[in-house]
Amino acid sequence: MTRYIDVTAMQQLVLQHGVAALMAEMADCIREGFLRWDEFDQSHRINMAVGVGVLADAATGYPMLLSEITILTALRTAATSALAAKVLARPNSRSMALIGNGSQSEFQAIAFMTQLGITELRVFDVDRQATDKLVANLSPYVTNGTLRIVRASSIREAVRGADIVTTVTADKTNATILTDDLVKPGMHLNAVGGDCAGKTELQPSILLRSKVFVEYEPQTRVRGELQQMQQDFKTYALWQVLAGRQPGRDTAEQVTLFDSVGFALEDLSALRYIHALSQKLGVGSTVDLIPALRNPKDLFACAAAARATLRQAA
Amino acid sequence: MTRYIDVTAMQQLVLQHGVAALMAEMADCIREGFLRWDEFDQSHRINMAVGVGVLADAATGYPMLLSEITILTALRTAATSALAAKVLARPNSRSMALIGNGSQSEFQAIAFMTQLGITELRVFDVDRQATDKLVANLSPYVTNGTLRIVRASSIREAVRGADIVTTVTADKTNATILTDDLVKPGMHLNAVGGDCAGKTELQPSILLRSKVFVEYEPQTRVRGELQQMQQDFKTYALWQVLAGRQPGRDTAEQVTLFDSVGFALEDLSALRYIHALSQKLGVGSTVDLIPALRNPKDLFACAAAARATLRQAA
Repeated sequence: MTRYIDVTAMQQLVLQHGVAALMAEMADCIREGFLRWDEFDQSHRINMAVGVGVLADAATGYPMLLSEITILTALRTAATSALAAKVLARPNSRSMALIGNGSQSEFQAIAFMTQLGITELRVFDVDRQATDKLVANLSPYVTNGTLRIVRASSIREAVRGADIVTTVTADKTNATILTDDLVKPGMHLNAVGGDCAGKTELQPSILLRSKVFVEYEPQTRVRGELQQMQQDFKTYALWQVLAGRQPGRDTAEQVTLFDSVGFALEDLSALRYIHALSQKLGVGSTVDLIPALRNPKDLFACAAAARATLRQAA
Repeated sequence: MTRYIDVTAMQQLVLQHGVAALMAEMADCIREGFLRWDEFDQSHRINMAVGVGVLADAATGYPMLLSEITILTALRTAATSALAAKVLARPNSRSMALIGNGSQSEFQAIAFMTQLGITELRVFDVDRQATDKLVANLSPYVTNGTLRIVRASSIREAVRGADIVTTVTADKTNATILTDDLVKPGMHLNAVGGDCAGKTELQPSILLRSKVFVEYEPQTRVRGELQQMQQDFKTYALWQVLAGRQPGRDTAEQVTLFDSVGFALEDLSALRYIHALSQKLGVGSTVDLIPALRNPKDLFACAAAARATLRQAA
């Protein structure tokens, strides 16, 4: 049978395991996935549809897990952002600007708090109610003293003094959320919101003065901030840094930029992790998607099996 | 909520509606899909994973249906074969050779019996037990006098005198199930088994003397019998024939060949039909794959919602 994680089961996993621990372990799995770059897609296959993710055994094709992916994607995106920032941001980073306080913002905030030691969050959104919501959702961390939230009245104010700038706005346009003059030496930019063709957040000149890291370049060329640059613009593969094959940040003054668009390897790792966690915690159910055929050549008897069964039942 | 058809629900649909009626109505839906060729993929999207099919509203991305696809694919393949044969085979076709008596064979047999008026089935498989199984599964049609089954001892004997030859063998190789000398003027060849790269069933010279019809040429070039031919080998689009824009069979003596590989438009039409039928018959259930957000920007509260709910419950 195929393991099945619906919205309720995913909520249950977040509750039982804790969102911070879940994202930290997921980040470890994504890191391991990146380290096995050359073997990617050999043991498992994934298929991400609208609202549904399927993890299958590559050898047999059998679907091992069917999962909701709305919450999952927010978790894996924040886990990947933190994973990248760990090897790219200055080690003493404590303050993060968070531009865009919508559906992914709290996941980003918690991943950076718990995995990087961010203690100050400088937040801004054109929608004040979005920021109200973020502040309310993160209030437990403020109350217990692990986080200070600064509500900025502009992007400029939010970015001021920040070690890391996370942009996670939702406008489906080529927007300029972050302008070049706001970017200071030593910053790490975590550009999450520009993730499809025609959707960007950064002024192109920012990329020109940054060391730009990508998940998988051919995809980032089409969907990332990179779509604004010439074809020969130099980028660096995140996995090479994670594997220790290439340096990440070269100097404390360098501006580093993670041009995040989301990559299949991250989905695969996230689904694998959720599959294992759900088994460990006994959360979720199973679904009956593959006929159990006594004779593999007799699909017809299976298709017509209900007839006999129901006649007996009647 | 997303409608959900598991194996048991698909069996139930086959039972309640009858496999013949279901495939006939599905063929109508596939025909309508082909007639809207230019609009394909505009109102709905599909995603076929290993064992799972998802039908989504293209405008909203919302998954409307999640379905098992093992039985579904056998139904839609046979429905498409019958749909093509209706416009390509000679109208007085009564005898069909069925080479390969495995998991798809009965579906093909019943679709051709009920939609084309085939009354004689000439069956052959290298695995005698596969033929035993087919004969047993189709015995009700023999008993009630609508079908005569001839068990042939060779492909040559099975094909002799047949108006239609259906090849639906499962070998994952470039096999030569049907040789040129067995193909007689006026035959319609329904080539189902050669459906992926490296897997073919027909001697190439058969294609040279046939009028070859395809679902979507670029795909058939890679996956169909067509992979054996030169790039400039002429083919004809099935949908143009269905739409009355192009003739199908030109003369009673012509050999027609449907080089079936299975096409996304057929999956889309089949899923649409199953969605409508399951609603009409009240079969199937629903699954909870998309979070119902009061505030679309507050995914985090949803991810953490179980906390409050369960605390109250505890």
